[in-house]
Amino acid sequence: MRTVRLDLAYDGTSFHGWARQPGNIRTVEGVVTDALSIVLRERSPLSVAGRTDAGVHARGQVVSFPADPSVDVSGVAAAMNGRLAPEVVVTAARWATDGFDARFSATAREYTYRLNVGTAPDPFTARFEWHRPGAASVSAMRRAARDLLGEHDFASFCRAPDGDRSTTRTLTRLAVRRLGDRIEVTARADGFLHQMVRSLVGTLVVVGEGRMAPDAMPGVLAARDRPAAGPVAPARGLTLERVIYARRTGAASGRRRR
Amino acid sequence: MRTVRLDLAYDGTSFHGWARQPGNIRTVEGVVTDALSIVLRERSPLSVAGRTDAGVHARGQVVSFPADPSVDVSGVAAAMNGRLAPEVVVTAARWATDGFDARFSATAREYTYRLNVGTAPDPFTARFEWHRPGAASVSAMRRAARDLLGEHDFASFCRAPDGDRSTTRTLTRLAVRRLGDRIEVTARADGFLHQMVRSLVGTLVVVGEGRMAPDAMPGVLAARDRPAAGPVAPARGLTLERVIYARRTGAASGRRRR
Repeated sequence: MRTVRLDLAYDGTSFHGWARQPGNIRTVEGVVTDALSIVLRERSPLSVAGRTDAGVHARGQVVSFPADPSVDVSGVAAAMNGRLAPEVVVTAARWATDGFDARFSATAREYTYRLNVGTAPDPFTARFEWHRPGAASVSAMRRAARDLLGEHDFASFCRAPDGDRSTTRTLTRLAVRRLGDRIEVTARADGFLHQMVRSLVGTLVVVGEGRMAPDAMPGVLAARDRPAAGPVAPARGLTLERVIYARRTGAASGRRRR
Repeated sequence: MRTVRLDLAYDGTSFHGWARQPGNIRTVEGVVTDALSIVLRERSPLSVAGRTDAGVHARGQVVSFPADPSVDVSGVAAAMNGRLAPEVVVTAARWATDGFDARFSATAREYTYRLNVGTAPDPFTARFEWHRPGAASVSAMRRAARDLLGEHDFASFCRAPDGDRSTTRTLTRLAVRRLGDRIEVTARADGFLHQMVRSLVGTLVVVGEGRMAPDAMPGVLAARDRPAAGPVAPARGLTLERVIYARRTGAASGRRRR
């Protein structure tokens, strides 16, 4: 068996998240697995880089699965898109290097959270952003973000941490930028805890709106207690933008096969 | 009575066009009229700048209606958006100058048609563009567009012209631009015939794909016959971007009221 890598983009609005669930609950993993089993005539277990929550979107999700070397990978994207697009789109399909695993080979994940801070919502982008009208100070948000960078115990930014597992992660990027009526927060880390990006964003918004001090983050981190941070921002604004792999993994051949 | 002007943006995907229809058919005019009748406690007939077809969107639609001078116009946008957003959004509400009429005072309408010519559809923009993968020559499209500019009888670009009414319009802009995998066609005219923008775009795409000569437009216009032009492009790619009024009409006061 060899390993296939698929790159996926999806509008998560009407899905109950990535992970397959029992019953008639519609998930991205469910529809992708079902389509793959028709296209490849076999049902393969998928490894996924980011298990997105209900309502969260992806532009650069990555999955991998074992497949017989006789499979025509070059035809997989078109066949899958014929079934799932435009809600779920396979943007690339290729053979990965031996040993590649979409989840375990990933060295970092990057998410972007989008806010519309204008007076009115925007029907053209509403599915992919949180409409939060009002004045948020980007400089205050940046000041707070600086103290969150690096290796920390992010238990305060995690929903229901499992006591046995480490809540330490390394945040290598937490950028806040303003584009007209929009604020984008981009977060990159080796991995994220459950609802961590949305908790970081919810907290930064509270800071931006002046309801928490920009220098409060060291105390929030030290508390290791969810209520110390701000609220969880809504799922609709969050998009998994890309997954980063060490060079020479995950792209054995066929970048041109896009 | 005075005249209220509302500026609207909407995602037309799930509407059967602008115009109110009998029965349970969902139209933009229907939901806007219903919401207005609750907000203002009276049912007003609406004048609209562009009667968009089923599936067509708007970023800068304009409507006007008579209202009692005691109406609190400054609160209309928020009250309407509380009922209709984000699918339909009131982006501005204000008193217009006496005699203003959203339809008859308009001097021009501008539409943009969006094409995604990349290999895969894009889940983030799919509702607002036509996925038409392949190589379209923007320079050929521009060459053809040049011959369509100005005052012409556009009967060849009109669905089912009414024999009694003029099919002459003045096209003051027909711009084609490429942005990565996207092609945008922007059309501005004093007014448009039924399905005229989509017929112009469908024809330009045929030219761009090399199936009609770039210099064929004078002949297509002269034919005054729908089959002489190319097919009608799908509704989803079309957006009414803005309506142009002569200065000093349509904005009596309260630009700041946005």
